[in-house]
Formats: sequence, structure tokens, C-alpha cells
Amino acid sequence: MTVSTLSHAQSNSELEERLAELEQRIVAAEKRAAAAERRAKQAEQEMAEVQANESEPVSQDIESRLAEVERHANGEEGFSFNVYARSGLLIGEDGKSSEGSPYVTPAGAQGGAVGRLGNEPDTYAEAILNYKMRFDNGAKAKYTTMIADSVTTSNDWTAGESNLNVRQVYAEFSDLPSFTGAFEDAKIWAGKRFDRDNFDIHWLDSDFVFLAGTGGGIYDMQLADNWKSNLSVYGRSFTDFPVDSMNPAAEETDSTDNLILTSNNYFGNWQWMVSGMNAADNDERSTSGPLDAADNGVHTMVAYHGEDFFGISEGNSKVAVMHGQGLGAATKTIGGNGNLTEDATATRIGLYGTTYMAPKWRVAPAILAETSEDRYAQGDQYDWATFNVRLANELTENFEMQYEGSYQWMDISPQGYGGNNAVEGDYTKLTIAPTFKPQVGGFWQRPEIRVFASWSDWDEELNDYSASDSFGKPGFTGDDWSFGVQTEVWF
Amino acid sequence: MTVSTLSHAQSNSELEERLAELEQRIVAAEKRAAAAERRAKQAEQEMAEVQANESEPVSQDIESRLAEVERHANGEEGFSFNVYARSGLLIGEDGKSSEGSPYVTPAGAQGGAVGRLGNEPDTYAEAILNYKMRFDNGAKAKYTTMIADSVTTSNDWTAGESNLNVRQVYAEFSDLPSFTGAFEDAKIWAGKRFDRDNFDIHWLDSDFVFLAGTGGGIYDMQLADNWKSNLSVYGRSFTDFPVDSMNPAAEETDSTDNLILTSNNYFGNWQWMVSGMNAADNDERSTSGPLDAADNGVHTMVAYHGEDFFGISEGNSKVAVMHGQGLGAATKTIGGNGNLTEDATATRIGLYGTTYMAPKWRVAPAILAETSEDRYAQGDQYDWATFNVRLANELTENFEMQYEGSYQWMDISPQGYGGNNAVEGDYTKLTIAPTFKPQVGGFWQRPEIRVFASWSDWDEELNDYSASDSFGKPGFTGDDWSFGVQTEVWF
Amino acid sequence: MTVSTLSHAQSNSELEERLAELEQRIVAAEKRAAAAERRAKQAEQEMAEVQANESEPVSQDIESRLAEVERHANGEEGFSFNVYARSGLLIGEDGKSSEGSPYVTPAGAQGGAVGRLGNEPDTYAEAILNYKMRFDNGAKAKYTTMIADSVTTSNDWTAGESNLNVRQVYAEFSDLPSFTGAFEDAKIWAGKRFDRDNFDIHWLDSDFVFLAGTGGGIYDMQLADNWKSNLSVYGRSFTDFPVDSMNPAAEETDSTDNLILTSNNYFGNWQWMVSGMNAADNDERSTSGPLDAADNGVHTMVAYHGEDFFGISEGNSKVAVMHGQGLGAATKTIGGNGNLTEDATATRIGLYGTTYMAPKWRVAPAILAETSEDRYAQGDQYDWATFNVRLANELTENFEMQYEGSYQWMDISPQGYGGNNAVEGDYTKLTIAPTFKPQVGGFWQRPEIRVFASWSDWDEELNDYSASDSFGKPGFTGDDWSFGVQTEVWF
Repeated sequence: MTVSTLSHAQSNSELEERLAELEQRIVAAEKRAAAAERRAKQAEQEMAEVQANESEPVSQDIESRLAEVERHANGEEGFSFNVYARSGLLIGEDGKSSEGSPYVTPAGAQGGAVGRLGNEPDTYAEAILNYKMRFDNGAKAKYTTMIADSVTTSNDWTAGESNLNVRQVYAEFSDLPSFTGAFEDAKIWAGKRFDRDNFDIHWLDSDFVFLAGTGGGIYDMQLADNWKSNLSVYGRSFTDFPVDSMNPAAEETDSTDNLILTSNNYFGNWQWMVSGMNAADNDERSTSGPLDAADNGVHTMVAYHGEDFFGISEGNSKVAVMHGQGLGAATKTIGGNGNLTEDATATRIGLYGTTYMAPKWRVAPAILAETSEDRYAQGDQYDWATFNVRLANELTENFEMQYEGSYQWMDISPQGYGGNNAVEGDYTKLTIAPTFKPQVGGFWQRPEIRVFASWSDWDEELNDYSASDSFGKPGFTGDDWSFGVQTEVWF
Repeated sequence: MTVSTLSHAQSNSELEERLAELEQRIVAAEKRAAAAERRAKQAEQEMAEVQANESEPVSQDIESRLAEVERHANGEEGFSFNVYARSGLLIGEDGKSSEGSPYVTPAGAQGGAVGRLGNEPDTYAEAILNYKMRFDNGAKAKYTTMIADSVTTSNDWTAGESNLNVRQVYAEFSDLPSFTGAFEDAKIWAGKRFDRDNFDIHWLDSDFVFLAGTGGGIYDMQLADNWKSNLSVYGRSFTDFPVDSMNPAAEETDSTDNLILTSNNYFGNWQWMVSGMNAADNDERSTSGPLDAADNGVHTMVAYHGEDFFGISEGNSKVAVMHGQGLGAATKTIGGNGNLTEDATATRIGLYGTTYMAPKWRVAPAILAETSEDRYAQGDQYDWATFNVRLANELTENFEMQYEGSYQWMDISPQGYGGNNAVEGDYTKLTIAPTFKPQVGGFWQRPEIRVFASWSDWDEELNDYSASDSFGKPGFTGDDWSFGVQTEVWF
Repeated sequence: MTVSTLSHAQSNSELEERLAELEQRIVAAEKRAAAAERRAKQAEQEMAEVQANESEPVSQDIESRLAEVERHANGEEGFSFNVYARSGLLIGEDGKSSEGSPYVTPAGAQGGAVGRLGNEPDTYAEAILNYKMRFDNGAKAKYTTMIADSVTTSNDWTAGESNLNVRQVYAEFSDLPSFTGAFEDAKIWAGKRFDRDNFDIHWLDSDFVFLAGTGGGIYDMQLADNWKSNLSVYGRSFTDFPVDSMNPAAEETDSTDNLILTSNNYFGNWQWMVSGMNAADNDERSTSGPLDAADNGVHTMVAYHGEDFFGISEGNSKVAVMHGQGLGAATKTIGGNGNLTEDATATRIGLYGTTYMAPKWRVAPAILAETSEDRYAQGDQYDWATFNVRLANELTENFEMQYEGSYQWMDISPQGYGGNNAVEGDYTKLTIAPTFKPQVGGFWQRPEIRVFASWSDWDEELNDYSASDSFGKPGFTGDDWSFGVQTEVWF
């Protein structure tokens, strides 16, 4: 027992020691726990503050203020600036400025454009100043003004040749809270403008339709599930035209307005546009023949906006047929030509598409063709057709070779109108243009800087159409080379 | 004892086990405490970093950088864009552009405006480009240039009719640290400008005074506790006017400058403006009668800027009396008319006010009237008075009906000046204009898009005043309707 | 043993109690540890979130978004606006607009400018609208258009006198990733522009060379370690000049283009510029004498761009010698003068420097001188030299006194060209201009608002040079005072 007692005593004192040590350790552990709890509590408070700060002033206030200045920087609010511009040299073989323009041929005066690459002699610049407003009630308004100039001189100071003018001044409202139902997404506008829904064949510098003038209208009425519609009235001025006078010795002039009521309708990819117009007293305009000038007209267009390259490959395509009568026989610039006769008719087709033929090869074919009769004189006929193809081979990130081939056939019988002669023939232009871009990647990427060589040729007969047009100029008779450098910019 | 010894042994071994378990648990607890302390320490360090980051770069640096870009977005610093513009159609009963203008009557040439609603045939656009600078020393500078155009054609390309010109080019400095005392809040300016303190009767498109030209001056001198004062010199050009020649067969012209020294003084709501002017050699201008053209003049205006509607209700109101002699007899466009005779006198009163008559009904009456004698010829007299009221009934958030009635009486005896005949009569115009706005809420809310019908009538006698003014046009003889659509924008 | 047993029993129950207490405390400690761990874990998770938020959306996302809007606000990206403008009054002793201009003397037509301070009668304003783009591949593009106007009328509506025109329209690309080696920092451009590297003597309103027109080129090719080079082609138009006709009765005109190939080369502070030019058929221009008009020319300039005031003190200085022959004899406006003969030669020197003479006294001397022979007619000679010094004494933060002395000697023998007479003489102008600035501190600080008094005098003989220039005007014959106020702005 002694042993056991001894061991008891031993074990008891050992237990005592271990217990005392444990008690000390537990006191220390409790102190540490208390300290840790204080630190945790403090950390939690600070964390709460940080989180409060974070979610409130930093995240929310800064976020919304930043979003607003971003809307200003992005042009969604306040002032924004848009541009279309081209400027460069077009020099002929003789080292002088060359005649040129997509509208250079006898068909050009009737809208018969040819390819523009290496064919533009002008500095043309549009500066578009916008201001976008957001109102407390959610409504938005946009004001747009455009100033534009076109000169062919290469000099810097062009006050003598300046054509600077204001082409657009309009306001457009959207998101109007009191517009509901079919009008929920409708936008209304008034002023002077290019119609929002104009679209073009870029390579011919020709719109399918170019509706512009001063008026007002409404866009994007939802008339049915698959039917969106626009309705506008546009005025255009016919100014100081000669009228047939009782007294043939007196030169008399009149002015009038061509008022155009136009409706655009969208059904999926299809567009149907119809326009009627009236210009009071325009029939009193003096004409060369028995036909009166038209004082009214109709115009219509059916168009298909393709989301691929004619169903063949990726890309896009557009096809449209336009027809007009009387004042509507200006198939592109709707209502813009007061010289058309009451019997004038015109039918035009236009189409283009863009796609990649191969990874670095883009192609864009286009066709524009018109037949028109009794346009300015009884029995006259203006028939023309343009075939154009633009090719681009993207060689580096910043460089591509562009090629354009353009062919136009025309058969024009003006019946003496304007002192012009009947001609029939064709025009061909081939252009090669090494082109620099900040970033290649499609036909719509701008700006571009290009140098180019362009060869054009045409039937000699076309030089006889008019003594005052480009083909009537001495020394510009076909088989012509031109060279140049040009920039084209839009944003 | 055995039992107790046994229990001792049992209890000892049990204690031993419990002790061993406790020791293990305390070791584990200590490890957990150590781990927790490490985690707490790390969390505290990270917290400190987060807090440092938070209070420094995020809150302060971001805040000040954001404040600067906000000043740019808000137009307080850097570029900003302001606009006044109107554009639309004004079509008469015959379907053609109608004559029209607030200055359409015979009194119009002397500043006798009538109501503008449904009476504006033009696209008029001002684009104002500003740039505001802040300097390290706290000084601020503003540069302003305005280009403006006015055409009546509805066409988009208006190079042939363009009136695009630069109306303002000036710089203005403020917050100059070395300007102290009475000059502490003073602003100095030079260049070509519209005076800052011009104010208008909007509905008549007429300023009370329109002081503009090229010069320099100082604004907002605090001459006494209740006296703020401006002092400016403005030049205006009288160009190529005919002078009486020794040799009556020779047509001779001269040009001169009308130098206007002008002081504007504000005492509470009262304004007193006084201007003296001198145009060297303008008295050599050839006149039709015995009176010489004036080569100097004085002009003064007393105005009251009311903060309510003539003390009757909430709103605002302005009342002013202007008087001028000699060159000062152009009571609105101070110093702008070089044809005035040395004896010319003119006294004009103008007033308007705006208020809500009922929750959704706004009203703005205005009066402008003048009597003037010996203006361009001895014994001539030009008396006219316009009463105008604009009403608006706010029907939805985005739509209101606007109404305007305008009446002008005039009695003009030109004594043959300008080949014009003496006439006396009155003019009345009534207009109704359904008007769309992004947000209704007062007479100064823009943009607006309005359609309108306007009927005007006048005494037949007024058509005899001049063959070359609007009322002299055949077919514009009174009882005329016009229709149109128009936008008006300012910001 | 009893004691011991008793003590055993006692000690055992005591141990039991202490153990039980310890067990309770360890349970509590474990619970607290578990709770602390949960709190720590939650705190760590929240911390992680905070840090994630902080480094991601707050610091990084906000930072990058803010940096982008700052680039917009600073004009590094998107739209930006630059201006040069001056506007004010220049009134003679007679109280009318005074003749004046740095180019007022007979030498002025050949580029012989005198000091501009108190010598400018016009409102001249340039508005430069830029748009800068950054592409995903790192490339940058800049579009610039400038509209400018110059009128001398003081009126606000200047449609009748307007010279508003578009002086620049160009695009410039940089940072093109596929440009490497010598082209790594190269920039390419095309359009209508002022050459980037033009530099001027500000106080004479004269560039050393002013190269401008329509074309394209490349800047900043690094051809060797110390050799940077530019290469450009510029076209300028010579329009509707008279040509010698077979039939002297018929007035015939022709137009051509002066095509200028120009290279600028920089070696440290030295610049060597060389330009060759050709204008086809310009030699058919009719001239008054036996010499043909030039159809080509060369021009060269050697310039030193000093980083101190001629090695004497801090400041800057520029010295250049220009020489040209044929069409190159327009030593400033390279290629801009089609009337120069095939034998024309001209040599011009220009220099200026700026420094502080004393803490608040700035000085800027300048010299411009040219000798030219066979310029427009055989044996003609145009020699002139201008010495100019501008002084400024900075008196407060916002005010300085400016002084300008200008002296020009000229000896012109036009040999009948332009109907002008040979004259020899000198011109002196002294001007004092108290000047306000938002912040003084150097010759390049703008905007400024100045009032000034200017006295000019010249040899009477100079009035005989031409009846149609300023010195030919009656009443502007020397010993003339003029006064005015003007602002000058650039940014």
C-alpha cells in the first residue's frame, strides 16, 4: 500500500501540478479569447464601416456620377461630333487636276453614278454637331446641325470658292412618357434633315433614296406586330424658275414648294416606301416642248435588307426597286427635281452586297440601273446601268490593297433638252488603291488613307453629249489615267 | 480501505484520464487561439490597407478627378456647346411658302415686331462654341464664338443662299486675383459679341435693347452696396454709304464707325442704361431732305426686372422705357442705324410677363410700342404699338396647346423716305399650335415641335406702304391663312 | 495514513472540483474559440470580398473607366476643340477704322511683315474641331477640320462680308502596329492641312515657312540615330490665270496645280528642309515682260531651333535661312505664288528669341529680311528688312505693360509690274499696350485683352508705290496714331 500510497501521493502532487499548469493555461487562453473577441468585434465594426463606405459613396455615388460622364464621353448625352469627310488630290497624266466624280458621265446628271475609288476631285467635309438631352420624366431629345462644304481647289484659304452651308437643323424626341400603345417607341422630329432611313450604295456615292428637306414627322409607329411605320412631310424649294409669260420679251420667274408626304413601312426585312408630292404652279414652268412640267408626282420603293450576302455567305446585302412618275420620277432625290414633266416615268433598281470570299479577301458587287421616259421633253429616254465591284485584300493589320472595276452602259436621247445630243456607249474604270487603315477589318472601317492609280475609258461618242460637261472638256476624251492620294473619314 | 483505495485508484486513473483529455483540449485550444491571433493580425493588417486605400486614392483622388471630368461634362470647364435654332415650313393657302416674319408689317422695318408663333419662314441656327479655362491662380477665362445662318429655302444644300457667318468672337476673364475692392467680382472682355445683358420679349422675337458689335468692357463693378455697374465701348460699322458729292454725277461713298460708350447700372430690380455714341463724318451721308444724318447720339433705358407677374401672381415680368436721339434713336439695336437724322427722336416702351392663370394654363402678355419723329426725313413720323398674348394649355407631360393673338396698330408718315407711302392701319394675327415637348412646364422649356395654323389680316391700306416689302407682294393682301410645322431649340 | 487518506480524500474531491471547473472553462473556451473562428472565417470572407471589390471594380474598373473619360476631357480621345482668334477695334485719329495690318507696307505684299501689336484691324477666328480615335490594336487616328473667317467690319451679322471657309480637313494615323523599324514612330496623313512643322515669328504674324495645301505624307521616319525625316506631297491650285492667246482679242485662262514634293530633316537642333515643285503649263501664263512664268521651282531652308536665348540666357530662339528659285521663290508660302518668273530668286532670313531680361521684364527681338530679283518682271528687285522688338513688364498676376517697336526698310523696283512704282524708304511703328491676362508668365500665355495706342510713320515716298494699297489711301500718309482694344486667344 505504501507504494500505492506513495504513488498516490506522487500522483496527487503530479496531478496537482498538472492541474495548476492547466489552470494557468486556461486563464491565459481565456485572456487570449477575450482579446481575440475584442479584436474581432473591432474588426467587425471596421468591416461594417468599410462595407458601408464601399456600397454607398464609392460604389453607388461614384458609379452613377461616372456613368453620367461616360454618357457624355460616349456621345449618349450632351455634345457629340460626327463627321463624313474626304480630301485629296486627283491628278491627270498632264500633272494637272483631273476631271472626275462618280457622276462624271452623261448619265451622271440623271443619277447614273460610277465607282468612286480614284474618281473624286474634291475636299468634301460634313461636320455634324449633336446635343442629346435627357429629361427628368425619362424623355429624350436630340438636336442635330450639320455644316458641309465642297471645294475642288487644293489651297487652304478657300473663301472665294467656299460652299460652306448648313444642311441639317432638326430636333427629334423619343421616350415620351405620354406616347403609349402603337406610339410607345415612336420618335417625332421637325426641322431640316436627311431622312433617318436613307441608305446608300457606298461605292457609287449614291443613296438608294435620298429624302431630305424641311418638315416634320414620326418614326417607328408599331402598327402591328410585324409592321413598323414612319410618316413624314418634307418640303423642297423650287426657286426662281422661268415661267411662260404672256409677254415673251419679259423674263418672268416663279418659285414654289414641293410638298412631299412620305410613308416608310417595315415588315421584317422588307421595306415599302410610298411618297406623294405636290408643287403648286410648277406646271407653269416654261418647258421646251408640248409637255407641261409636273406639279405632282408619286414615288415608291420596295427594298429587301439582307442579313447575309444574297443567301450565299456571311455579309450583308440590299436590293431595291424604285418607281416614280411626274415629280416622283427623281427616283433617288425624292421630290428634288422641278424640271420633270407631267408624263415623266422612271424605274430604277439598285443592289449591293458585301462578303469575305476568303479569309483576307473582301468583295462588294453593286448594280444601279434606270430607265426613264418623257423626263424633260416628250419622247426623251434616259437608260443606263452601272456594274461595280470593289475588292480588298487585307495584307497587314494596317494595310490592304483595294481594287475597283466599274462599268456603265448608257443610251440617252434627250430630244434636244438642255442642248444635249443623243449618245449611246459605255464607260469603264479600273482602279488600284494601296490603302492604310488604323485597323483593317471590313468595308465600313474608317478612316482610310489611300494612294491610287485609276484608268478610265469610254466610247468617243459620249464626248458629244454636252460641251459643258466633263466629257465635253478638251483633253478629257477617254483612255485617261489619274493618280492621287486621299483620305476618307467617318465616325 | 480497499474500496476507498480502489476508488482512489479508480478516481486517480479517472482524474488522470480527464486531466490528459483536458491537456489535449487546452493544447488544441491554444493552437486555435494562436491561429485565431494570426488570422486576426492578418485581418487587421488587411483592414488597415483597405482603410488606407479607401480614404486616400478611392475617395479623395477619384473624387477630385471625377469632379474635374464632371466640370467638363457639365460645360463648366473646357468645351461646351450652346444653340438657338428654329426650322420648319410656313405654307400659305396656295400651297407655296408664305411671306411671314415677326417683322412682316410696314412697322417691322422700324422694329415693330408682331407675334412670332406660326409666323416664321426661315431656318435660323446659331451654333455657339465655348471654351472655359481655369488657371492655377484661380482666374477663369471663357472664349465664345458663334456661327449663325439664316435661309428660307427648304432644300438641304443651301450653298447658293447661305448666310453662314461668325456673329461672336470674344474672350471674357473673371476671378482675377489682382482685381480687388469694387473690382473683386468684375469681369473684363474684348472682341465681337452680343452684350451679356441684352434681354428680350421672346414672343415678338425682339430684344428690349440689342447691343452688339466689336469692342471691350468690364462687367459687375460693385460701385456701392446696392449699385452694380458695367462699362463698355462697342464699335459698329457704317459701310459704303453714299455721300453728297461736289460732282453730282460721281457716286461717292464713305465708311465710318459708330463708337458707342455704354454704361449699365443695377440698383436692386432696377436697371438704368445710358449710351453715347459718335460716328465721324456720318453727317456727310447724303439724305433726301434738309436734315443731315446724325454723327452722334444718346440712348437711355430704365428697366424694371420683376420677380413676379406685375405684383399680381407668381411668375416674372419686365418693363422698360427706352429713349434715343440722333444715332441713339435706334432704340433697340443701339448704334446700328446710320440713316437716322441729327433730329431723330424715338421713345419706346416694352413689357411682358409670364404666369400661370390656372394649374395647367400659362399666359404671357406683351406690349411693344414706339413713337419716333424726324427719323429719316424732316417731319416724318413712325408710330406703332403691338399687343401680344401667348397662351399655353399643358395637356399631358409632352403636349400642350399654344395660342397666340397679336395686334399691331401703326401710323407711318415717311415723308417720301425710301419711296414709301404714308399708311395707317392695323394688323391682327391669331395662331393655334399643338405643341410637343419632351417635358412641359413653362414658357422657357425647349426644345419644342409644333404644328400650327395661323390666320392674319390687316388693313388694305398697309399694302400701299412699299412695293418691295411683304405686304407689297401680289397675293399677300390680308385675310391670309398659313400652316406649318416647326421646331424651336435652345440650350 | 488517515490524515494522508483524509488528505487524499480531501485532495481528491478538491482536485475533482478543480477538474470539473477546468472542464467547464475549457468547454466555454472551446465555444468561444469556435465562435471566434466562425467570426474570423466570416471576417476573412468579407475581407476577401472587400479586397476583391476594391482591387477590381473600385480600384481597377473605376480607375480605367475614369482614365477613359479623363482622356475625353483632356482631348486625348474623342472630340477636342482648338482655337486661334483675335478680335477688336483699330481706330484712327479721325475716329474711324484705321488702315493697318502687319502687311500694311509696300513690302507687305511680298511677305515683308512689320509688328502686329496695335496693328490689326480684323476679327480673325479659327475653330479647329478634332476627333481622336484609339483602336483595339493600339493604333491611333486623328481627324482635324478647321473653319476660319476674317472680316474687318465691327458689326455682328457679317453674312455680306463673310469669308468663312474650311482651311483644313485631314486624317493622321500613328502607332500603327505593322509599322516597324525606321517607321515605328512614323505618322501618315492625307487631306488638306497646314504642315505640322510650320513655325512662325509670332510678333510679325509671319511663318518662317507656311507649307499648306492638299496632299499626303509621312512624318517622323527615323532614318538614323540622329536623323528624323518627313516626306510629303502637297498640291496647290493656280486658278483661272490669263494665258497668252493666239488671238490677242480673246481673253483666255487656264488653271493648273503646283505639286510640291517636300522633305524635312532633323539632326538634333538643326532642320534642313528641301522642296521641289512643278506646275504644268504655268509657263503659258501671260507675263508683262520677256520672262516666262515659272513652271517649276526649288526651295530650301536651314533652321536652328535653340533651346536658349541665342546662347546668352534662358529662353528660346530660332534662326533660319530660306532660299528659293522659280516657283520656289515664295520663300514663306511654299509653292503658293504662280506669278513668279522662271528666273525669280529670293533669299530670306528670319530669327527671333525670347528671354527674361529681369525678373518681370520679358524681351523678344525678331528680324525678317529678304532680297529677291526677277520676281515678276525681268530686272525687278524687292529688298526689305524688318527689325522688331516686343517688351513686356509683368506688373501683377493679371496685368502687364507690353511695348513694341518695329522698323522696316524697303527698296522696291517692280519694273512696272502691277502698275506699281519703284520706292525706297522706311517705316516705323511704336506701340504701348496695357494688357490683361488670367495669368501672366511668358510670351505664349493666352488669352489676352489689351488696349493700345500705336504711332506709325513712314517715308512719304512709300505712298506712291500703289494707288490701291493702304499707303495709297488718302489720309493715311504717315505720322498716324491709332487706338483700340483687342483680344487674342489660342488654346
